Amino acid sequence: MEQVKLYDTTLRDGMQGEGMSLSASEKARVVLALDALGVQMIEAGFPSSNPKEVELFAQLAELELKQATICAFGMTRRRGTAAEDDPALLTLVDSFTPAVTLVGKTWNLHLEKVTKVSREENLAMIADSVAFCRAREKRVVYDAEHFFDGYRDDPGYALACLSAAIDAGAENVSLCDTNGSSLPDQIAAATADVRAKLGGRVEIGIHVHDDAGCGVANSLAAVAEGARLVQGTVNGYGERCGNANLTSILPALQLKMGFEVISEEQLATLTETVHFVDELCNVTPNPDAPYVGRNAFAHKGGMHVAGIEADARTFEHIDPALVGNRRNILPSELSGKATIRSQAEQAGIEIDDDAAARAVEKLKAREHDGYHYEAAPASFELLLRHEAGLYRPLFKLESYRVVTERRAGGEVETEATIKVEVDGERYLRVAEGNGPVNALDRALRGAIVDRYPHLADIELTNYKVRILDQDHGTGAVTRVLLDSADESGREWGTIGVSENIIEASWQALVDSLEYAFQ
Amino acid sequence: MEQVKLYDTTLRDGMQGEGMSLSASEKARVVLALDALGVQMIEAGFPSSNPKEVELFAQLAELELKQATICAFGMTRRRGTAAEDDPALLTLVDSFTPAVTLVGKTWNLHLEKVTKVSREENLAMIADSVAFCRAREKRVVYDAEHFFDGYRDDPGYALACLSAAIDAGAENVSLCDTNGSSLPDQIAAATADVRAKLGGRVEIGIHVHDDAGCGVANSLAAVAEGARLVQGTVNGYGERCGNANLTSILPALQLKMGFEVISEEQLATLTETVHFVDELCNVTPNPDAPYVGRNAFAHKGGMHVAGIEADARTFEHIDPALVGNRRNILPSELSGKATIRSQAEQAGIEIDDDAAARAVEKLKAREHDGYHYEAAPASFELLLRHEAGLYRPLFKLESYRVVTERRAGGEVETEATIKVEVDGERYLRVAEGNGPVNALDRALRGAIVDRYPHLADIELTNYKVRILDQDHGTGAVTRVLLDSADESGREWGTIGVSENIIEASWQALVDSLEYAFQ
Repeated sequence: MEQVKLYDTTLRDGMQGEGMSLSASEKARVVLALDALGVQMIEAGFPSSNPKEVELFAQLAELELKQATICAFGMTRRRGTAAEDDPALLTLVDSFTPAVTLVGKTWNLHLEKVTKVSREENLAMIADSVAFCRAREKRVVYDAEHFFDGYRDDPGYALACLSAAIDAGAENVSLCDTNGSSLPDQIAAATADVRAKLGGRVEIGIHVHDDAGCGVANSLAAVAEGARLVQGTVNGYGERCGNANLTSILPALQLKMGFEVISEEQLATLTETVHFVDELCNVTPNPDAPYVGRNAFAHKGGMHVAGIEADARTFEHIDPALVGNRRNILPSELSGKATIRSQAEQAGIEIDDDAAARAVEKLKAREHDGYHYEAAPASFELLLRHEAGLYRPLFKLESYRVVTERRAGGEVETEATIKVEVDGERYLRVAEGNGPVNALDRALRGAIVDRYPHLADIELTNYKVRILDQDHGTGAVTRVLLDSADESGREWGTIGVSENIIEASWQALVDSLEYAFQ
Repeated sequence: MEQVKLYDTTLRDGMQGEGMSLSASEKARVVLALDALGVQMIEAGFPSSNPKEVELFAQLAELELKQATICAFGMTRRRGTAAEDDPALLTLVDSFTPAVTLVGKTWNLHLEKVTKVSREENLAMIADSVAFCRAREKRVVYDAEHFFDGYRDDPGYALACLSAAIDAGAENVSLCDTNGSSLPDQIAAATADVRAKLGGRVEIGIHVHDDAGCGVANSLAAVAEGARLVQGTVNGYGERCGNANLTSILPALQLKMGFEVISEEQLATLTETVHFVDELCNVTPNPDAPYVGRNAFAHKGGMHVAGIEADARTFEHIDPALVGNRRNILPSELSGKATIRSQAEQAGIEIDDDAAARAVEKLKAREHDGYHYEAAPASFELLLRHEAGLYRPLFKLESYRVVTERRAGGEVETEATIKVEVDGERYLRVAEGNGPVNALDRALRGAIVDRYPHLADIELTNYKVRILDQDHGTGAVTRVLLDSADESGREWGTIGVSENIIEASWQALVDSLEYAFQ
């Protein structure tokens, strides 16, 4: 089988999407996840001197990756400056990454209207920049910006730009549909021409955007004509309509076109991996996403279900397990009990038929209220324990009170008071915090830590809030998701839902601490 | 110019999407909107005897449409029943619609595993059903279900199914990729074969689903090979990953492939029309949607903005006005003075060079602290007003206090106290709320509403929270995004950042109210 490589630009182009931002350590976690998935090249951005980028590159340099190559990204040299005097290029070649991706112009219109550089100078900028990076022993990917627009206006010059990069030592030239203007037939024809004229001397890459809703198909069209490196982002994040969606491209390449991209085992982690990245980016996973969405293999109606039972191929284009997703039969009443029992089994909880039936009912009622246990498996396990008669409360709450005050001087202070009972004994505690949840957490732990010393080892690692807009007319509810971890590295997620954000946070907090002691 | 027709199945296939439902009169409004847009054929569903469908077809029969043809949808006759004795076919031909769409099997696998009908009987079912509808003077579209799967398994039989429909008088055979399994090259090859063998005798249609993320490209590939009727749904609604998205297909056909579909004036209403349908379906418009999303023509960064100003083609694949959308310049930390000034201009704020420079600095500092103005343009505008000397505070805050209490009986209560000053006069107010932000909002409005009666018209419509930089050991900050709207339908977004969620919410709230009064 022939190989196609994936080149992920989630950390650079993906971050151009509306509302996207990740801290340096979150970006490092994305890199580890993509490496585990098998992505071959990961673009980290420009290693500038701003503190956030310095921290990112310092963290990335320390990562132990299985196979991925990290690329630093930058532009060709400035007009009228020698490559070795260009501060940005110097920063690039000084970074730890073995590979560098250089982007440069290909389209006359941009030379005339934007950069005001002559056609000859632009070719020299490309050649000098690539050669400089090669001389400093970097592998070089050349991103030919606006390639397809340029090719339609003046194919000779667009190809000359690629040749300049190839002659200077680029190992890959990636054809960019920067404005997302192209349709698959245009991508195919231009890629075929590049392959015919230059394909023997260089690997061809493809980098497209989804402005025409054809990002996936455009990438596949280029591969069909010889591209062997596909650039894109997890879940298609990116500015405007997004970049090419690697999450959809990967299964098509491997399962439908017969290319070798990553291992079968890695492909089976796709759904989990991309949902993890969504979670880090605080993006709600698209329920209708191809391959990985929770509706991607949803079936309703008797005929579908009967067909699926006779032969899954009747109504499913691939086996969902191949991409780590699962079939979703709607409505859930029939499959409910069986699912509950198998989930209980996985968690080591013995649950009989009646308890499983009660759990199904409770689950339905809770999901109707806005709970979403997929994102909070620890809370779901507590629900199962409840119904199985195995739940052990840590304490009995009498009351709490949280006060946040902004004083006349401008300082903001928060304190929480709590009254709880453990084994018939009453505990009162007050604590300050940098916010209401932090203050509640401290007060609760302060109250019961003597009875449960292991509480000191539990850390709240993430906290997310969404307002769920129920139907028009009914009150909105607040959903809180809380992630926790302990010293052993175990991590778990809990949920709370209430009209009141403090009460929703309290529920998630109590679940978090109780889960640790079950 | 050659014509391609649109066939909309939003009211049938679109309603299979998760959470979709429309009343009869809402469906009638969708039909009117699609007719005004210029859609040629509109599928209304099966005119069954249930009261909702009866009402729908009664309403549709009364509509005065400009040009659209309404189609009733049903299946081929049952096995072993004569067409004229089949109750469903009788209902179909009795409906008022001039056209009928019949769906039937094409794939051996389904005949064997699902319907258990012989190959010959299936051909007879197709022929009899089409002929019966033709005898009752209906125009007939034949939907060849699972055509592409069937064609890959047994092209001869798949074509025989089409021939049966054509021989019996179908005016169109629509090739369906029912499971969404196909990629564009497969669609193109099969469509080309159908055209070569049967194209002289019938119009070819295409009906695909988006399971491989190629629904748009698959539809266009079929058109390139001769299909002249494209089936799909508004915004790609539909079960699993959705149907082919007519909202993306239409501009590609007309603006990129040179077909005549609807008039230029109609195309310029596309954005408005599809957002109206979103609104009826209670679906949040996808901000990243090709052509019609609010981000589809969004630009950030100084070079983009300068390029756009020199020549819009540099960074825009089409003129957004052609589809009724508009350009959207975003603030960001990459922005320079030029962006700031053009942003200010859009907002009607006069800002000089020094003020623009200060705004750039403040923007950078704020973004470093965790502010993210892309998602909060109203807060950004307030920042610009500050620097331009145009900011007018609503009030001066002295202090606030918010108390959330869970009583011994289990009830949760929240109250907020606020002390503010307007024009030297001091106002104190206390209010309850269903959560701390709601209580603060009520207390603040209560305190100053006499001075600003328009406050009563402002509604908080959405609230999102995320924790930034939860690196171990360092202080995490909370970022709150708040959306607001007033009675005129104007919407705006604001932001607050603080260690304390209450304080962050307060900032976003104050920005929201102040923005309304600038």
